[in-house]
Amino acid sequence: MEESFYKESIVLIEGAITEMLAKLDIIKKYKLARNERVPIEYITTRVKTEESMKEKLKRKGLEVNLENALTKIYDAAGVRIVCSYIDDVYQIAEMLKSYKDLKLIKEKDYIKNPKPNGYRSYHMVFEMSLDLAGEIIPVFVEIQIRTIAMDFWSSLEHQMKYKKDIQNQELIAEELKRCADQIATTDLNMQTIRKMINNEE
Amino acid sequence: MEESFYKESIVLIEGAITEMLAKLDIIKKYKLARNERVPIEYITTRVKTEESMKEKLKRKGLEVNLENALTKIYDAAGVRIVCSYIDDVYQIAEMLKSYKDLKLIKEKDYIKNPKPNGYRSYHMVFEMSLDLAGEIIPVFVEIQIRTIAMDFWSSLEHQMKYKKDIQNQELIAEELKRCADQIATTDLNMQTIRKMINNEE
Amino acid sequence: MEESFYKESIVLIEGAITEMLAKLDIIKKYKLARNERVPIEYITTRVKTEESMKEKLKRKGLEVNLENALTKIYDAAGVRIVCSYIDDVYQIAEMLKSYKDLKLIKEKDYIKNPKPNGYRSYHMVFEMSLDLAGEIIPVFVEIQIRTIAMDFWSSLEHQMKYKKDIQNQELIAEELKRCADQIATTDLNMQTIRKMINNEE
Amino acid sequence: MEESFYKESIVLIEGAITEMLAKLDIIKKYKLARNERVPIEYITTRVKTEESMKEKLKRKGLEVNLENALTKIYDAAGVRIVCSYIDDVYQIAEMLKSYKDLKLIKEKDYIKNPKPNGYRSYHMVFEMSLDLAGEIIPVFVEIQIRTIAMDFWSSLEHQMKYKKDIQNQELIAEELKRCADQIATTDLNMQTIRKMINNEE
Repeated sequence: MEESFYKESIVLIEGAITEMLAKLDIIKKYKLARNERVPIEYITTRVKTEESMKEKLKRKGLEVNLENALTKIYDAAGVRIVCSYIDDVYQIAEMLKSYKDLKLIKEKDYIKNPKPNGYRSYHMVFEMSLDLAGEIIPVFVEIQIRTIAMDFWSSLEHQMKYKKDIQNQELIAEELKRCADQIATTDLNMQTIRKMINNEE
Repeated sequence: MEESFYKESIVLIEGAITEMLAKLDIIKKYKLARNERVPIEYITTRVKTEESMKEKLKRKGLEVNLENALTKIYDAAGVRIVCSYIDDVYQIAEMLKSYKDLKLIKEKDYIKNPKPNGYRSYHMVFEMSLDLAGEIIPVFVEIQIRTIAMDFWSSLEHQMKYKKDIQNQELIAEELKRCADQIATTDLNMQTIRKMINNEE
Repeated sequence: MEESFYKESIVLIEGAITEMLAKLDIIKKYKLARNERVPIEYITTRVKTEESMKEKLKRKGLEVNLENALTKIYDAAGVRIVCSYIDDVYQIAEMLKSYKDLKLIKEKDYIKNPKPNGYRSYHMVFEMSLDLAGEIIPVFVEIQIRTIAMDFWSSLEHQMKYKKDIQNQELIAEELKRCADQIATTDLNMQTIRKMINNEE
Repeated sequence: MEESFYKESIVLIEGAITEMLAKLDIIKKYKLARNERVPIEYITTRVKTEESMKEKLKRKGLEVNLENALTKIYDAAGVRIVCSYIDDVYQIAEMLKSYKDLKLIKEKDYIKNPKPNGYRSYHMVFEMSLDLAGEIIPVFVEIQIRTIAMDFWSSLEHQMKYKKDIQNQELIAEELKRCADQIATTDLNMQTIRKMINNEE
């Protein structure tokens, strides 16, 4: 039982990601055809590992099975949307909310309210319905929206978190925090320059 | 007006194809994970050219615009599903009919009732709803389901149809018809052998 | 040692396949740009499994290591080129022989001389040199060229070979042989019709 | 003549890009299998437009034909390699130089010596030999290597260059220059933190 729960849930989770990517691809081309800009630089996806899903269910005191994997874990399917500018982030968040078949479950703005370590990103969880030849299955998808610079910073921060035996950990954490603020300032400056170039008010 | 109708309709048509391919990809992986077979060998897609869409609208006495392109033309978006055996064709047709968000508009069985020239294939037209960040647009998709051998035959028949100045046209047409029947017999034989190998009744 | 040999050899084998696909993609586009036809319908690839490689090396009385995997096994990297017509098969075989950086090691024409069970296909083994940032490594690639119909037949024959407890095995083998000959006749007929349509002599 | 030169040259240029991407893909997987890091974040490619190639040839006083397109234009095929850290840029440049079938034609380090406007990037031009079923054709490929942050900056700078009627052009140029230096500082800081985390000297 525990052995097979992952094989099936992975397919549904990947299916939800496939549907989300299809949505983003269509809207991108549609806007381009109307000469509107779609402010997406690149998209990456992530599926929670078997080990990590089991651990999460057990930590919550839940049985490890397909139903719990699909209904109790919000971040099994992950889609990260990376864009150039901070205002792009908010534009994408609004756009996603307007889909009739995406139900917003959770939303957290770590850009306006960065985490203490300096982490910045816009998080959302949507519920979408997968149609498997007539069988309808609800699946959660976690969306993270951030700028290129925030994404780069967070990849380095991630390295630190998973490294053991780091010397001067506190000093490094301080330096990382300082870099995060520096990057946020540059992001704002670049956005200001873009607005000047394009005569946006 | 006439100039720009295609740019937008092409995006919606390609969007419908993207959604259909996503559906087929998900169901394929889902069935594989449950150790069920999905009897699809390969899938090809086709978008009607601008010229051909204009011609069709004019022939029907309709104005050339986006609305008519989307609501009056059934075969602007084409998806061809090719499978190994004749019974696979019917299994896929049934599966497609069970999707809640696919509305069957037309259906024609050219396998049970081949065209006079020998053409065999199963044709369906579905209406699907494209969600463009809240704006819902209905789009038609034409599905052709056939065996590998039918697909090969039809590619040669297609060559003949678009060739001018063929000598012995009648003789060739007769030969093609004879090959189509030969191929249909082989398809049945191969299916019988497969059933014998797998002890299917 | 035995445990790690596969991880590295798989990369070199996949690398050789990547290079071969790049070659075929370039020549295809090049010929299309010159309005020449490239007679390839589709290409599939295959990498020998770890188990199967170990077994083959042991059967040959050889040590299981990276060097032997690369220098003693001809079919670790497999590329199957499927085309519409029998004369396409020979055209592709000739084309592959003309590459200066592909060294022909083995060649077998199972179309002119089918196997007793009815199997038809054109087999070649090439040695190609992989350049890994200055380190040159020779890798073998096995090429199988066949028509669509031969490919379909062989997929069914393959099913039989790997099925246990088949009743009437002999009868099925006979039927398969008969189908193989029938398919070969249809392939020839289709080629004749194509030549008539295109006025080829 | 002038009309057709592009159709053929585009295929050779795209072919060279395909070969270069195959090389990078193979080396990436090879290094991963040996637990070595390949410091590439993403790769983008670019093919010079017909208009832009014609213009360049005419500006040089050369005839517009296939031969001149292939032998006189260095940047018809463009591959941009984007990496996380500045030292990654140099590691990739060295790696590319070690390929036996890539001949270095030109090299320019705009990171050590940024352009006056703040532009930073490492430029190389290689000559590679395309084997078209026995016909060997030399093609140039321009490589640009830069960090993610340099790539972002340069996309904004590019917008300005192609925009007409910008108010306060001088002020914007100054701001862009200041941002470029800020970004370069952040890149260095991030590299320092990475070295601290990984105990690199």
